Amino acid sequence: MEIPDVQSLQPPAKFRISRVGVRGVRKPVQVERDGLSRILIANIDVAVDLPSFKKGADMSRYLEVIGEVVEESVESPCRGVEHLAATVAQKLLETHPYATRAYVDVHSTLFLRREWGGKTSLEGYEIFGRAVGLRDDGIRKFVGVRVTGMTACPCAMETVRSLLITRHPDMKDFLESIPVPTHNQRNVVTICVEIPEGCDVDAERLIAIAEASLSAPTFEILKRRPEGELVLLAHENPKFVEDVVRDALKMLLEELRDFPDSTEITVISESMESIHRHNAYAERITTLGELRR
Amino acid sequence: MEIPDVQSLQPPAKFRISRVGVRGVRKPVQVERDGLSRILIANIDVAVDLPSFKKGADMSRYLEVIGEVVEESVESPCRGVEHLAATVAQKLLETHPYATRAYVDVHSTLFLRREWGGKTSLEGYEIFGRAVGLRDDGIRKFVGVRVTGMTACPCAMETVRSLLITRHPDMKDFLESIPVPTHNQRNVVTICVEIPEGCDVDAERLIAIAEASLSAPTFEILKRRPEGELVLLAHENPKFVEDVVRDALKMLLEELRDFPDSTEITVISESMESIHRHNAYAERITTLGELRR
Amino acid sequence: MEIPDVQSLQPPAKFRISRVGVRGVRKPVQVERDGLSRILIANIDVAVDLPSFKKGADMSRYLEVIGEVVEESVESPCRGVEHLAATVAQKLLETHPYATRAYVDVHSTLFLRREWGGKTSLEGYEIFGRAVGLRDDGIRKFVGVRVTGMTACPCAMETVRSLLITRHPDMKDFLESIPVPTHNQRNVVTICVEIPEGCDVDAERLIAIAEASLSAPTFEILKRRPEGELVLLAHENPKFVEDVVRDALKMLLEELRDFPDSTEITVISESMESIHRHNAYAERITTLGELRR
Amino acid sequence: MEIPDVQSLQPPAKFRISRVGVRGVRKPVQVERDGLSRILIANIDVAVDLPSFKKGADMSRYLEVIGEVVEESVESPCRGVEHLAATVAQKLLETHPYATRAYVDVHSTLFLRREWGGKTSLEGYEIFGRAVGLRDDGIRKFVGVRVTGMTACPCAMETVRSLLITRHPDMKDFLESIPVPTHNQRNVVTICVEIPEGCDVDAERLIAIAEASLSAPTFEILKRRPEGELVLLAHENPKFVEDVVRDALKMLLEELRDFPDSTEITVISESMESIHRHNAYAERITTLGELRR
Repeated sequence: MEIPDVQSLQPPAKFRISRVGVRGVRKPVQVERDGLSRILIANIDVAVDLPSFKKGADMSRYLEVIGEVVEESVESPCRGVEHLAATVAQKLLETHPYATRAYVDVHSTLFLRREWGGKTSLEGYEIFGRAVGLRDDGIRKFVGVRVTGMTACPCAMETVRSLLITRHPDMKDFLESIPVPTHNQRNVVTICVEIPEGCDVDAERLIAIAEASLSAPTFEILKRRPEGELVLLAHENPKFVEDVVRDALKMLLEELRDFPDSTEITVISESMESIHRHNAYAERITTLGELRR
Repeated sequence: MEIPDVQSLQPPAKFRISRVGVRGVRKPVQVERDGLSRILIANIDVAVDLPSFKKGADMSRYLEVIGEVVEESVESPCRGVEHLAATVAQKLLETHPYATRAYVDVHSTLFLRREWGGKTSLEGYEIFGRAVGLRDDGIRKFVGVRVTGMTACPCAMETVRSLLITRHPDMKDFLESIPVPTHNQRNVVTICVEIPEGCDVDAERLIAIAEASLSAPTFEILKRRPEGELVLLAHENPKFVEDVVRDALKMLLEELRDFPDSTEITVISESMESIHRHNAYAERITTLGELRR
Repeated sequence: MEIPDVQSLQPPAKFRISRVGVRGVRKPVQVERDGLSRILIANIDVAVDLPSFKKGADMSRYLEVIGEVVEESVESPCRGVEHLAATVAQKLLETHPYATRAYVDVHSTLFLRREWGGKTSLEGYEIFGRAVGLRDDGIRKFVGVRVTGMTACPCAMETVRSLLITRHPDMKDFLESIPVPTHNQRNVVTICVEIPEGCDVDAERLIAIAEASLSAPTFEILKRRPEGELVLLAHENPKFVEDVVRDALKMLLEELRDFPDSTEITVISESMESIHRHNAYAERITTLGELRR
Repeated sequence: MEIPDVQSLQPPAKFRISRVGVRGVRKPVQVERDGLSRILIANIDVAVDLPSFKKGADMSRYLEVIGEVVEESVESPCRGVEHLAATVAQKLLETHPYATRAYVDVHSTLFLRREWGGKTSLEGYEIFGRAVGLRDDGIRKFVGVRVTGMTACPCAMETVRSLLITRHPDMKDFLESIPVPTHNQRNVVTICVEIPEGCDVDAERLIAIAEASLSAPTFEILKRRPEGELVLLAHENPKFVEDVVRDALKMLLEELRDFPDSTEITVISESMESIHRHNAYAERITTLGELRR
């Protein structure tokens, strides 16, 4: 007895579907950059659009495509998560001829060796790649990072300074010359950059920019003196979430000076405020062209 | 000693910020609809945009605005979470004269009395309201629901039917007349609808549509026979995530027949597939005008 | 045709089950304390043990019991989440005659009016009640709170002080007299206390103790000067997670001086370290008797 | 100027602390078993106890110990996550001479090649290792797995069968001979087993037992016929969460027949019920000795 092909039936309600997909497929993938090969554990989400006349997408093909690309990465490692995403998007369009668009997101953790105060450690950074495939218009690629660091509040610092000066008016000059207490906290910076054809930027560079945009980075191993120095660095560099976003944008303008005006860029900074139970955040979604104006 | 106003300084890097906000403010709010007053526990996120020349948004005003609106809701309950969001957005524009936009999201749980098989229970549904305030162009409002129910896979059902017929060829006619096993699972349907000026739709109506779009609703209390009847209902009504989205769109077209073409609508169905570790989903983001074509 | 009672069958593998239960039942419940009536949104988990000879627990009865207790709370509000949990546990033992134990957890949010620097706001605190019913030995009750506040690190403060003194040796005396920068962060304190028969403690008292054990509480609305004063309070009161736990234990010893030695107590402090990506925590699980020794 | 050692001060409130630790340290580690070497991404939590007379634990040593063990794993891979945990626990006791206990948890994902219906794929399984080090009494080790599969409800199946027989009384015999619809859903089975000195069990064996205890496993790639066969397998093997726990216990008794009576064992099965919004679960915490009685 033949098994019927239910997906190919006419649906009772004939509407196009913007995206049909699967979320949460985990795979080990191999990437290679600058001669360094790594295994990344990737979390992969994929989708395509579905025309009004087709009841269901062929979802098992998503998993076959992901499986193939992962197997191929062992033989011939891809250059990064955004390239992996683009390859999956390309194959999705090939195996789903009724689709006009394919969407792929790949999330992973990149481990980098860090050093502060003479101690080194391997620390993990969230990275992600995204691809949007348009049947007749190529594949758009994006690479992103999420970096945890520290912000120290510039407003509370000036308020505390003025409170201390009120208590010790004769010490005004000295108090104006040193960092004084403020609230500081964990902050997560997200940067996502479009990678137009012929352009390239490394996730590690974006991680470096994200860390430089904060009041201070964080480290796993902090012995006493290096910990004190890190705290001082943060207090000599107090920043609002707004400042973090703007400083990252400024560095991105410089880093991506060869990228075209149409390049899409997103920067987000979110603070787990130590003095509040809610979080504060700032975000800019823009293009290089807008920023260059 | 005067406390300096750090927020009003010129920022070193002069870029506009798309959104500066806070996330995760929780408050009890009073809503009243059709003469029925309820207390909802709301989770509120707010943001405004920030011009390039201002270092920081005045975030404490966000909390003052939220606090005021919540206090006022005790005296004069709002009509729903989307109206609460709109009121907050309006006040944000008033208290942040430098902002051109305000964004407000309110999430809560609505408890409704449900009945199945002679048993009733109070069950919670996620609802949300959203408002986007444009300084010179009024406030756009959205209301949404997230409803958990059940989907039974139509494709696996037909495959199982054909496998059973192969085993019992003489029972072909009977096997074609009854529901046979398939995989079924928890599915979450999200519906979000814009509420243009002069239009209105109740969150409870959207909940009813979301439940009707599934293979079957779920219930907390299921004694033996009602549980069997619910399982049969789901199997007599097998649906892909794509079917759920399309059937919800069809009912929304009917329900919102008086809404203008520009009305924005989103429908998402996500299945925690029982036969996979990944989730399957479908979504349509559109306007009533597109759907009516 | 009769519907078979599958739960009552003999299981193929005859082992006792420690707990069979349901998780994540949400209900609005009414509590009343000191004449003040409130509606709380509760998340309820329940379980009983199952003897080796019974295939399945009668789970629909769990939901019937929860439903009944919730309905009764409207007529006659319970005194708190731990009393609600105890009532459910009692009824579970009655409706599951084969069980020797019943376990109930109730989680909710309590909103309290807070004041700092002349501004008041309603802020939410996590509270929980727990009951363990033993068929022949009564019901043990526990009440708990989870409170978010702020810790400032005493070690980094002394290191920073010594670094500043090295830079400004002539200011040694002054630098030893003022709070200097340190890392500070969001910290969550959990306190859980057994409530023996005839004893009573209010969740609000435990919230007050948890807040007093931190370097400083947090507030939603902080205008400039009150924010500076809160930051100074935290820096005049620097604490490790270990200090938070010990100071809470000390206050609990005083608060619960009339409670018997057998009273079980848990205190946990967890810091979202601003200088690390990992969290730091300390916990003590003990009895009043051990602490009194 | 000397940096003071604040951790070694006498605390103001002199209570012992049960655990002081860090949570959420992520590292890539190398493990080797049966000649197969793998890189696992591990999430590591560690803690020690703290005597009443010491203000703070030396937390930076935790990170140094973890870093050392991770580096050593590159040269000489450990045999599994439980051995990694034991090595870290041993070193924590050495570097924290004031501690009497050390606690280590290591969580990771193990990728295994799976096959169903002629298709193979690499699928991830959660595994964990745990070690509790007692200064004068050696290190206790535990290994655990969390496996996602499928359960089909035996009670609803019999109810549906009886409803179908009522509709089709002349088909009673046939309906009693075939699997009929029931609700089925994603279920997560957790197994944790103590590994006494001289004993050994592989995480892959525990994964196989967990999968065999369910109604059916899940797979990523399911073409039409294999999907139907998997659905039939689940329906020919309907199970309550209680059945899953008992069947796993039975297989563990056989698998661990050479382990001593004192061996601690935990089995949990949790179902994301398709017909309810709440989850159902069963758990047994016991020893092999108790099970053998």
